[in-house]
Amino acid sequence: MRSDAPIGVFDSGVGGLTVLRTLLQRLPDEHTVYLGDTARVPYGTRSAEVVTRYALISARHLTGHGIKMLVVACNTVSAHSLPALQKALPIPVVGVIEPGAQAAAARNRGGSIAVLATPGTVASGAYQAALRRLAPMATVVARACPLFVPLAEEGWTEGDVPRLVAERYLGDLRRMGVDTAVLGCTHYPLLYRPIAEALGRDVAIVDSAEATADAVRDLLDKHDLRRAAAGPARHRTLCTDLPDRFRAVAERFLGRPVENVELVDLSP
Amino acid sequence: MRSDAPIGVFDSGVGGLTVLRTLLQRLPDEHTVYLGDTARVPYGTRSAEVVTRYALISARHLTGHGIKMLVVACNTVSAHSLPALQKALPIPVVGVIEPGAQAAAARNRGGSIAVLATPGTVASGAYQAALRRLAPMATVVARACPLFVPLAEEGWTEGDVPRLVAERYLGDLRRMGVDTAVLGCTHYPLLYRPIAEALGRDVAIVDSAEATADAVRDLLDKHDLRRAAAGPARHRTLCTDLPDRFRAVAERFLGRPVENVELVDLSP
Repeated sequence: MRSDAPIGVFDSGVGGLTVLRTLLQRLPDEHTVYLGDTARVPYGTRSAEVVTRYALISARHLTGHGIKMLVVACNTVSAHSLPALQKALPIPVVGVIEPGAQAAAARNRGGSIAVLATPGTVASGAYQAALRRLAPMATVVARACPLFVPLAEEGWTEGDVPRLVAERYLGDLRRMGVDTAVLGCTHYPLLYRPIAEALGRDVAIVDSAEATADAVRDLLDKHDLRRAAAGPARHRTLCTDLPDRFRAVAERFLGRPVENVELVDLSP
Repeated sequence: MRSDAPIGVFDSGVGGLTVLRTLLQRLPDEHTVYLGDTARVPYGTRSAEVVTRYALISARHLTGHGIKMLVVACNTVSAHSLPALQKALPIPVVGVIEPGAQAAAARNRGGSIAVLATPGTVASGAYQAALRRLAPMATVVARACPLFVPLAEEGWTEGDVPRLVAERYLGDLRRMGVDTAVLGCTHYPLLYRPIAEALGRDVAIVDSAEATADAVRDLLDKHDLRRAAAGPARHRTLCTDLPDRFRAVAERFLGRPVENVELVDLSP
């Protein structure tokens, strides 16, 4: 495996761009290929079998780009399909849930840990299982917040509406002894401020995207796969439907201009 | 075609149940088969080609149930795929946009007409084109309201959050001389009250679901396809993924218990 090969980053849509954003900050010399499966988004309302089928199709497309590592920047796929992906691919595969749970366990100070995620991720029980293993003494509260994703995509990240929505979802967690909250959905970092206000200043907020970027860096080092900076890093952005629409939202999630979004056809 | 055959009702998810609800009220003797393509929901973020491909798969499944008429209870499919469906099927096919636009044109009193819909339906221009034809003197304002769908599915249909969201989307329409608004998304009838409050009491609100039910009744009469009441009407509910989740939301949209949701596999 050549260290000069790109890192593949895969998500059902735009959310994984918050993971890519952190990766680009932490590992500025790495080439990347991002694939958002916008033809089949959202994955969170689909069964585990369907999610794994879709994830394998996308992962195989990315291996065609010669990637040296696959980052599954999607909580739903990380919850349901990591073993299948790791078995099917000849390269390291990193999800977002284990790094996020590890960081939450490390930050926890003896209070309860709140998992904020989509209904699908909460129902999968993946964060809860990881936290029971990594922080066996902590009480875990999982809270589904379905309106956070459309708020983030709409760009309504400040003001009355996100504040009231966050307060309605999270206001009672203060009284439940929560001292750590993990953002278990890639969209939620865009709503960091209203989430933090609803939780109160004493709660440590763990962003799974940051924890995942750290895990990727460690894994590259372990496999001696870090790219030596010889020329600027190249970044490609692919999606499976409506690239113009994708691009408009993508720039807000990535925090930098997205010059070109390539449309790929992954229909079976 | 036997008049005793069921009416097929098709949507990408649960939204079309508001159309089915009105159909059951208007035509209580008719058998129905509802199909929600929950494995591929939402359609609104997909291209016209993809939507038509999905719609044809679902429509062919419903014709296998011997339906006498197909009601496309989905604005996205009605916008993109009616000609393809009408060409492919040997039975009458009714969409929601033409009846909704006709009712809006009939209610209009010389002011502007507002189309409230998803970004996909607004971008399709289908309501705007129909209204230009049916109410050529009226100014048409199309307004995308992406948060209304998750609010309706979450059941947040009253209180501060839907009120503020509706005010943010619609508050300026009062000052734009709107006297008629058409609910161009099957989810929006659940938010009737906050929408009506934001629009003000002088705006006539047209529900496409009601207009569509009237159109179905007229078309049944025209083709002499009304079922004579001999025994109770039978209703089947099908979806393509996660029937338990579908059922939980479905009862709120349908306004009556849904006893059994059958899972069908339409993967190509």
